[in-house]
Amino acid sequence: MLSREDCLALDRKDLLAPLRGDFDLPADVVYLDGNSLGARPVKARVRAQEVLDQEWGRGLIRSWNSAGWFDLPLRLGDRLAPLVGAGPGEMVVTDTTSVNLFKALAAALHIQAQSQSEAQTQTQSQARDASPHTEATAQAASAQSTPRRRVIVSERDNFPTDLYIAQGLTHWLDRGYTLRLVDSPEALPAAIDDDVAVVMLTHVNYRTGRLLDMAAVTALAHACGALTVWDLAHSAGSVPVDLTGSGADFAVGCTYKYLNGGPGSPAFIWVAPRHMQSFSHPLSGWWGHASPFSMESDFRQHSTIRSALCGTQPIVSLALVECGLEIFERTDMGAVRKKSLALTDLFISLIEARCATHPLTLVTPREHELRGSQVSIEFPHAYALMQALIGRGVIGDYREPDIMRFGFTPLYLRYVDVWDAVETIRCILDDHAYDPQATPGAVT
Amino acid sequence: MLSREDCLALDRKDLLAPLRGDFDLPADVVYLDGNSLGARPVKARVRAQEVLDQEWGRGLIRSWNSAGWFDLPLRLGDRLAPLVGAGPGEMVVTDTTSVNLFKALAAALHIQAQSQSEAQTQTQSQARDASPHTEATAQAASAQSTPRRRVIVSERDNFPTDLYIAQGLTHWLDRGYTLRLVDSPEALPAAIDDDVAVVMLTHVNYRTGRLLDMAAVTALAHACGALTVWDLAHSAGSVPVDLTGSGADFAVGCTYKYLNGGPGSPAFIWVAPRHMQSFSHPLSGWWGHASPFSMESDFRQHSTIRSALCGTQPIVSLALVECGLEIFERTDMGAVRKKSLALTDLFISLIEARCATHPLTLVTPREHELRGSQVSIEFPHAYALMQALIGRGVIGDYREPDIMRFGFTPLYLRYVDVWDAVETIRCILDDHAYDPQATPGAVT
Repeated sequence: MLSREDCLALDRKDLLAPLRGDFDLPADVVYLDGNSLGARPVKARVRAQEVLDQEWGRGLIRSWNSAGWFDLPLRLGDRLAPLVGAGPGEMVVTDTTSVNLFKALAAALHIQAQSQSEAQTQTQSQARDASPHTEATAQAASAQSTPRRRVIVSERDNFPTDLYIAQGLTHWLDRGYTLRLVDSPEALPAAIDDDVAVVMLTHVNYRTGRLLDMAAVTALAHACGALTVWDLAHSAGSVPVDLTGSGADFAVGCTYKYLNGGPGSPAFIWVAPRHMQSFSHPLSGWWGHASPFSMESDFRQHSTIRSALCGTQPIVSLALVECGLEIFERTDMGAVRKKSLALTDLFISLIEARCATHPLTLVTPREHELRGSQVSIEFPHAYALMQALIGRGVIGDYREPDIMRFGFTPLYLRYVDVWDAVETIRCILDDHAYDPQATPGAVT
Repeated sequence: MLSREDCLALDRKDLLAPLRGDFDLPADVVYLDGNSLGARPVKARVRAQEVLDQEWGRGLIRSWNSAGWFDLPLRLGDRLAPLVGAGPGEMVVTDTTSVNLFKALAAALHIQAQSQSEAQTQTQSQARDASPHTEATAQAASAQSTPRRRVIVSERDNFPTDLYIAQGLTHWLDRGYTLRLVDSPEALPAAIDDDVAVVMLTHVNYRTGRLLDMAAVTALAHACGALTVWDLAHSAGSVPVDLTGSGADFAVGCTYKYLNGGPGSPAFIWVAPRHMQSFSHPLSGWWGHASPFSMESDFRQHSTIRSALCGTQPIVSLALVECGLEIFERTDMGAVRKKSLALTDLFISLIEARCATHPLTLVTPREHELRGSQVSIEFPHAYALMQALIGRGVIGDYREPDIMRFGFTPLYLRYVDVWDAVETIRCILDDHAYDPQATPGAVT
């Protein structure tokens, strides 16, 4: 078992160690919640001042052009793309993950209904050749209203907003779509059949930290004629993601967790190039128009990824996303992943060795190929223990039910931080220094 | 006719003059584009630093509670409410105007379909009493799919995104909704009939600056059983708005124009308290859930205005909205309106007196009751002239076709600014000092 000194030695050899200097972290904190809100890049302070003083204050309305605000959602998308295996012009940073998921899911359902409609038109034209005046015409006309593929597959344990958005969209579309929720990823193969329109999953589970095999699940979906929508909230910047290589169809995700874009910084949406021409969603605002400043009264969709945009974006928050992305350009996701696994391995082994007498249960998979960059631990008084930990400067978070969640961000976490965090957990547990009556309040 | 000295004298007597000190404006600029992007409050600089350093940097995830991020959309809504005649707990600041309009319009259509469905259930139950086994049951069941009121009335000259959003929503709902666009507000009475579900209008027209009579139009709509959705993008903070007094049903609007919230700062949405219980929209993200941190797999809508929230908001941009709102608390909309009309009157009279030999045509109504806080002027080379003006530090903007748009923000504009702006226009016109070949690029 490693000692604290061993951890310090690991830090001295760590090639990513210098990147910690790119972040402003409070000296009295071990921050294990970068999976909820990433730490602040040093540059964000300077950049915010620049946007406030030069761009908004001095440039005023001119900054839409002179400071490049107009293209910012695309520029950020291009800068983020390499981290998730996407190409230039394939993604934009805009709106929230929930809103982007709404667009992506709607687009996927639309593509499915369209392809069904085309198939029916073909059937209809074949039928007409054989015997005119069949019912095929009426069928084709109502294709959009009664899609054949009406099932959306997801995990019951998916992040709730993903399920809520799917429920909202399908309820309003009122075309008989249903959500088929599996209780574990093992049930996915049985759940994905020819009735499935879309498989909508989160790449790394927010609660357990379990990582799905994107390529395998996508292949499974495609084999049944289903499309995939991936939520990368907990994987972008935390594990290598290969959207292109895995054949994924759509993806959305978050910039305020492992990408360190700032609290609530705008999310991203990616559309596979092969779907760009058929991409369409209900949030057809002026930013997605082919010619937004012509002020036409009819919506004509832009032919590029700009069509995923809707309204004017919060520029100050958006601009800061760049500061987080820049840091990734000083390393690569292979190095990030290697350190991430080393940190989570270390945490698991230290917890098991040093807190062995306490009822802590590992929720996150031990297998590297099934693990994201977080470790979740079940404990009967998880909320109370987490509050005590936060009180001593070890910041993780709590998730229902009874889960302590610890996120490991290789860009700014040290091996010694892991040692110190486990030591703090051990002390609190050994001393029963938590209030078992504490109950969850509003924590994000 | 007033002289420059007269204007300086007006500034000395202006009770709002001290508020100019609350804004950082470049010394070499006359800023007549606050209707597109408001100027930067001095406090925004300090506040941004506070959010970056103390809240994000030091507080990290704890700031969701300790810095009040969690309630920020509601707190800002309550602070904005008095400016538009709304009460506490009736509005939130969140997302974009386009996305909020999508929610409001969907909610209005839903309420109409529901009330029709209830009416049919009543008819059905009466019919069953008289003679069982009628078709009323089937009719009632399909009420949502085939609403009786299927018309949305708006202006063809409404801000395009409003029309695009209505087109997107109704196209996807696929229930036979149509958009009935009038060519001028005078045509509204004839267009609003018993087929109309929703009247969706912008209070002050973005292009002409024409102000609609919210109370009269709302009464007209209600008399026909229609609901109203008001876009306050160009009226919140520029003219007195009385949502409650006028009986309006829903409203959305923008904080980055006259409210000086910062570039692309989040928008607002208001729901009349009488509709709160029936309020529902497709963007059902976790922030609108009755218990977002219970992480339930089914969406249960929050019973308050929180249900208008969807995903996590861009906190840095959102926090700065407060700096703009604070300034309004040092005056009132009556005083703002009085100076606004004085400024636009002065601009119109100076333009007509000093540029009389040039083909400038006033687009904005002369009547006070029909005028917002902008003056639009048509000119054959409007784009070219505006570029020349901007080159000399007089910043307005251009709108298709051939419109120069000048916004007057009473909080920071001086009477002498109006004089100087007109003098600059006059000089450029007299000297033909603009390039008539210049053509519009991307300007917001």
